[in-house]
Amino acid sequence: MRALVYEGPGSIAWQEMPDPRIQKPTDAIVKMETTTICGTDLHILKGDVPTVQPGRILGHEGVGVVTEVGGAVTEVAVGDRVIVSCISACGKCGYCLEGMYSHCLADEGASGIGWILGHLIDGTQAEYVRVPFAETSLHKVPAGVVAEDAAMISDILPTGHEIGIRYGAVKPGDIVAVIGAGPVGLAAMTTAALYGPSRVIAIDVDANRVEQARRFGASDGVVSSAPDWKEQVLSLTDGLGVDVAIEAVGIPATWDMSLAIVRPGGHVANVGVHGKPVSFPLETAWIQNLTITTGLVNTNTSRMLIKLLAQGRLGVSGFISHRFALDDIMNAYDTFGRAVETKALKVILTA
Amino acid sequence: MRALVYEGPGSIAWQEMPDPRIQKPTDAIVKMETTTICGTDLHILKGDVPTVQPGRILGHEGVGVVTEVGGAVTEVAVGDRVIVSCISACGKCGYCLEGMYSHCLADEGASGIGWILGHLIDGTQAEYVRVPFAETSLHKVPAGVVAEDAAMISDILPTGHEIGIRYGAVKPGDIVAVIGAGPVGLAAMTTAALYGPSRVIAIDVDANRVEQARRFGASDGVVSSAPDWKEQVLSLTDGLGVDVAIEAVGIPATWDMSLAIVRPGGHVANVGVHGKPVSFPLETAWIQNLTITTGLVNTNTSRMLIKLLAQGRLGVSGFISHRFALDDIMNAYDTFGRAVETKALKVILTA
Amino acid sequence: MRALVYEGPGSIAWQEMPDPRIQKPTDAIVKMETTTICGTDLHILKGDVPTVQPGRILGHEGVGVVTEVGGAVTEVAVGDRVIVSCISACGKCGYCLEGMYSHCLADEGASGIGWILGHLIDGTQAEYVRVPFAETSLHKVPAGVVAEDAAMISDILPTGHEIGIRYGAVKPGDIVAVIGAGPVGLAAMTTAALYGPSRVIAIDVDANRVEQARRFGASDGVVSSAPDWKEQVLSLTDGLGVDVAIEAVGIPATWDMSLAIVRPGGHVANVGVHGKPVSFPLETAWIQNLTITTGLVNTNTSRMLIKLLAQGRLGVSGFISHRFALDDIMNAYDTFGRAVETKALKVILTA
Amino acid sequence: MRALVYEGPGSIAWQEMPDPRIQKPTDAIVKMETTTICGTDLHILKGDVPTVQPGRILGHEGVGVVTEVGGAVTEVAVGDRVIVSCISACGKCGYCLEGMYSHCLADEGASGIGWILGHLIDGTQAEYVRVPFAETSLHKVPAGVVAEDAAMISDILPTGHEIGIRYGAVKPGDIVAVIGAGPVGLAAMTTAALYGPSRVIAIDVDANRVEQARRFGASDGVVSSAPDWKEQVLSLTDGLGVDVAIEAVGIPATWDMSLAIVRPGGHVANVGVHGKPVSFPLETAWIQNLTITTGLVNTNTSRMLIKLLAQGRLGVSGFISHRFALDDIMNAYDTFGRAVETKALKVILTA
Repeated sequence: MRALVYEGPGSIAWQEMPDPRIQKPTDAIVKMETTTICGTDLHILKGDVPTVQPGRILGHEGVGVVTEVGGAVTEVAVGDRVIVSCISACGKCGYCLEGMYSHCLADEGASGIGWILGHLIDGTQAEYVRVPFAETSLHKVPAGVVAEDAAMISDILPTGHEIGIRYGAVKPGDIVAVIGAGPVGLAAMTTAALYGPSRVIAIDVDANRVEQARRFGASDGVVSSAPDWKEQVLSLTDGLGVDVAIEAVGIPATWDMSLAIVRPGGHVANVGVHGKPVSFPLETAWIQNLTITTGLVNTNTSRMLIKLLAQGRLGVSGFISHRFALDDIMNAYDTFGRAVETKALKVILTA
Repeated sequence: MRALVYEGPGSIAWQEMPDPRIQKPTDAIVKMETTTICGTDLHILKGDVPTVQPGRILGHEGVGVVTEVGGAVTEVAVGDRVIVSCISACGKCGYCLEGMYSHCLADEGASGIGWILGHLIDGTQAEYVRVPFAETSLHKVPAGVVAEDAAMISDILPTGHEIGIRYGAVKPGDIVAVIGAGPVGLAAMTTAALYGPSRVIAIDVDANRVEQARRFGASDGVVSSAPDWKEQVLSLTDGLGVDVAIEAVGIPATWDMSLAIVRPGGHVANVGVHGKPVSFPLETAWIQNLTITTGLVNTNTSRMLIKLLAQGRLGVSGFISHRFALDDIMNAYDTFGRAVETKALKVILTA
Repeated sequence: MRALVYEGPGSIAWQEMPDPRIQKPTDAIVKMETTTICGTDLHILKGDVPTVQPGRILGHEGVGVVTEVGGAVTEVAVGDRVIVSCISACGKCGYCLEGMYSHCLADEGASGIGWILGHLIDGTQAEYVRVPFAETSLHKVPAGVVAEDAAMISDILPTGHEIGIRYGAVKPGDIVAVIGAGPVGLAAMTTAALYGPSRVIAIDVDANRVEQARRFGASDGVVSSAPDWKEQVLSLTDGLGVDVAIEAVGIPATWDMSLAIVRPGGHVANVGVHGKPVSFPLETAWIQNLTITTGLVNTNTSRMLIKLLAQGRLGVSGFISHRFALDDIMNAYDTFGRAVETKALKVILTA
Repeated sequence: MRALVYEGPGSIAWQEMPDPRIQKPTDAIVKMETTTICGTDLHILKGDVPTVQPGRILGHEGVGVVTEVGGAVTEVAVGDRVIVSCISACGKCGYCLEGMYSHCLADEGASGIGWILGHLIDGTQAEYVRVPFAETSLHKVPAGVVAEDAAMISDILPTGHEIGIRYGAVKPGDIVAVIGAGPVGLAAMTTAALYGPSRVIAIDVDANRVEQARRFGASDGVVSSAPDWKEQVLSLTDGLGVDVAIEAVGIPATWDMSLAIVRPGGHVANVGVHGKPVSFPLETAWIQNLTITTGLVNTNTSRMLIKLLAQGRLGVSGFISHRFALDDIMNAYDTFGRAVETKALKVILTA
């Protein structure tokens, strides 16, 4: 088969690789129909994720059809159209039994991290992929849901929802600010609607992105390069700050922004992937009764999001900015890698 | 002043009454601008509520302007436009400190019930009303919110929300059935949207009401006089039943319907006012892991609902079916009392 | 092997039966070391549970050693000492993924009920038992925990804890009344301590049982045959009633008692197995803001209870009233069946 | 009257001051019977809290008798023995209605901080004190509770409980580590018992304090000066870390320790008062699914703690290390200020 292989920092190639095969009775093989590229893949390409070894097939998102299952698999069958979850969960370890799939302890990953596809084992940017723990790591695509929308369930929608909105404890009436209007930030905004906020404020350095966020449910927008950006945000509140600040960028400046706008008693949900420590001003923050959360997605709300998607109750149109054929994936990487310039959000690859 | 006075079973009159005056330092006097009639007022009129004595001014809903405040009142001031809550809460007793205002223990009511207006003390169907515990029982009307919409915050919106949706523990993805598409059932449907349900099923004997419910967020409707009503409901689920059944009628038949359609592990939230006991088949229900809730509204979510109303985030248009001048209230009672025939939902009275 | 077989209403026999064998890759065979008899087994013996067919080996509790596992079982191994859960959970269906194992939809049970051992398939009152879904239905016994204590984790401790204390939402400071001081009622009392109640009131018709309850954490006791039993209970509260009433008997009279003593805003957790409907006085209860719960145990807290047991943090001494050899089980049934007379709580059978 | 007055950094005096008097109808005057000194008072004395002006009477804890009430006060009366809460809460602002008294917005404080006694207005280290918002800021002492125990409700017990245990979300079975075995750390340990932890690990630099912590419910102790302190802690877990780490010291080193021992998915509850920022290694922590909380006590659980205290269900003996007469308070400050040397925990002053 053909697959996108990481060859080391700065180098990937679309090349011939051996077809994957069932290794354990809980595995399934999926023929990929649709896949996509994640910001994390760009980090890997830059060499920022040393646990990814040269020779690894990348990708942890996508939709396909099951072509083979292991002997213990009964919940999915050959022919099923399925969403591949970015998290592989054994379903039986202590963390999985609590729904914290992000820290699955199964030996497949051996790292205590549920994200193994395109990381510690071969991934989905390929014609076929082996999916471990298939029953708890694949989700059937309901009738009437198109693959492009379904692919958003692999990672970005549960990430925005779980790590942004749920960890942020958004509740009816809340004013929510999302800093960073990239795919995951937009996923947070669109899933915020499930919790009845009174306002969703999109904050980004890019005025176009701020404007675009309104299509994902943002009621208000603030361009963070404005000198009075903070005053603009506070003017949308009662002056005390937002109930929930979601950090979806991953740099010290946006962490600081989150703390600057959250009200006493509020929540800061960090979703962004950070590369270095931040400063946490506990000498003033301790008295603010803050809750700060971080996290890798568990995908334990994917099934629920799929139900909403099937009923047309989840705003997902607009995530796809560019479409490519699967074997044109090198161009897709190029386009996605220059997102500021190309205005790329999610790029979709279809087999 | 003029006021609507209960004279005993079957008899009410719009007549001259003494102006109310401040009795305690925590009181306020409100000049009523808009009021409405509740189904409970019809129960009183029939003599079903013996705690209401002849001579009582009825009414526990409405919007007005503060004309006088007691010496200890600092949170509201003369001139403020306010919503009168149907619950009077001292804010200091054990129940109030837990937000369970429905069981306020203050001596004003002496009954352990927060609903005292138009019940144990004179109410809002009058030109003026004395509101005890004004600071915790009045809510300022935000700029831009019209009185007709604000009046829905006095009782029906928090009742549908708190006793239907919150007690029913509606969560994202849930399938919610509301049995009874009267004002409170519709209030439950419209506030369900704050919790991300995948379906809201309106169930009523009246096909017109079922159809009308779509304007309040119902995604599906079932006419309960159909012999296969239950199968129709189950066909909208995975066959196991709804996650949450909200009973908003108050008779044994609709209680039975709730139990018939709720799934194992589901919730039945009783909102309807019942006149006699129901049979609870514990011999089969015990194994169903059900949660059954009942309750009088606490109005502890009114402030939050007002925030959403001010942001245009709460679906309230359509509750008002008929409009009358306040001194035409006898006709309003007549129209509301024949709701099936007149298709009355909420009738609004304006001073 | 030898096993206790149900032959039809009124008849059981300890007799030779074929050894169980692995039927599915997710099965395990367990050599029973310790088992016990449940009140439900007596109901079966009386013919009250028609889904139990003649020829069925009874029993759904106990501790043993794994002697064989199916091909897909990796979490437990031959030689492990294990607690057999009374609930068999596939771990993969919609209900299992939510932790509601009591309604496991796997085909093994085909009934949507997780209790299948000694019910729909052969059970644990035998020398060997086949346990389906072994990885999610067996729990390893930690070092230092004796089999007699561990056997209480099969059913009564999680039942009292989950259906009594958790469903009853016991929280710090609460006054909790438990009606019925049998094994499950006592399990509720001893696990109540995990939630910081200010009082635990044991209520039973039998003064000896009430007294005995103090060993399981009851702070107060009321004999329910006393004419002023209700006044006695209320005098232990502020006069308004208990926060949580746990019904652990299963007859209309004790259901009525629960409603009589619960305060407005309180919880009634029904744990008792009922044989007929009860009357629910909604005409007065609707205004009481009650939460009523029912349920079959999920055993989703068993792992946690085992952790506490291993640390000596769970009060379990005193549950065992009588001890028998396994092949003396007919006598054990006789003793347990005459519990009032023999003062039997749990009878333990050791192989 | 006599009172302890702050004269500026490094200087306090026990001197004659004017008697306080009622200023608002919601005030009460309390004759102090018992008071104590808080670590915060030492910070003030050092000049670390610039909002405290010279001339201020210090103290925010204690028990006394009401000698006068304002015209709007009905819930407490002259002659009541009361606990003075360290937080003054108006009970009516947005924060108070949510139970977040720590951020009361009432004009008395004008700072959005509920801690005003001995800070922005005169405090309790005096013969008399004026208590604003008396009904929501005083708690009656139940019969049978001694003043010394009751005084622990003013601040340290709710602080340890709310900011340590509740914010840390301790649940049954959890392993809880408390870093810092001073009064507030010990208060966290003793209130942890209300939530059913499997282990409570006391960590402190001082071996005596670690040992002493066992009297407050610690099941294990680790002296943090040991080079292998972290391994010692992890060996008390399954190797992955503690469920909840409570930081009760307030320096960067103990913050770092908290992060070092918390498991993925765990909670870090910061209780310590910090003087400078800490470094938060988001580049590794983001993937750990952590929840970090901070906060000033709300005292919204004081009423519940008093109920438990009255039932003898709260471990409070042992907090008092030294006793002084009120007019010997200068010596008490000296003893408390040299706590390492004098082994002072709480010093009690009795009028």
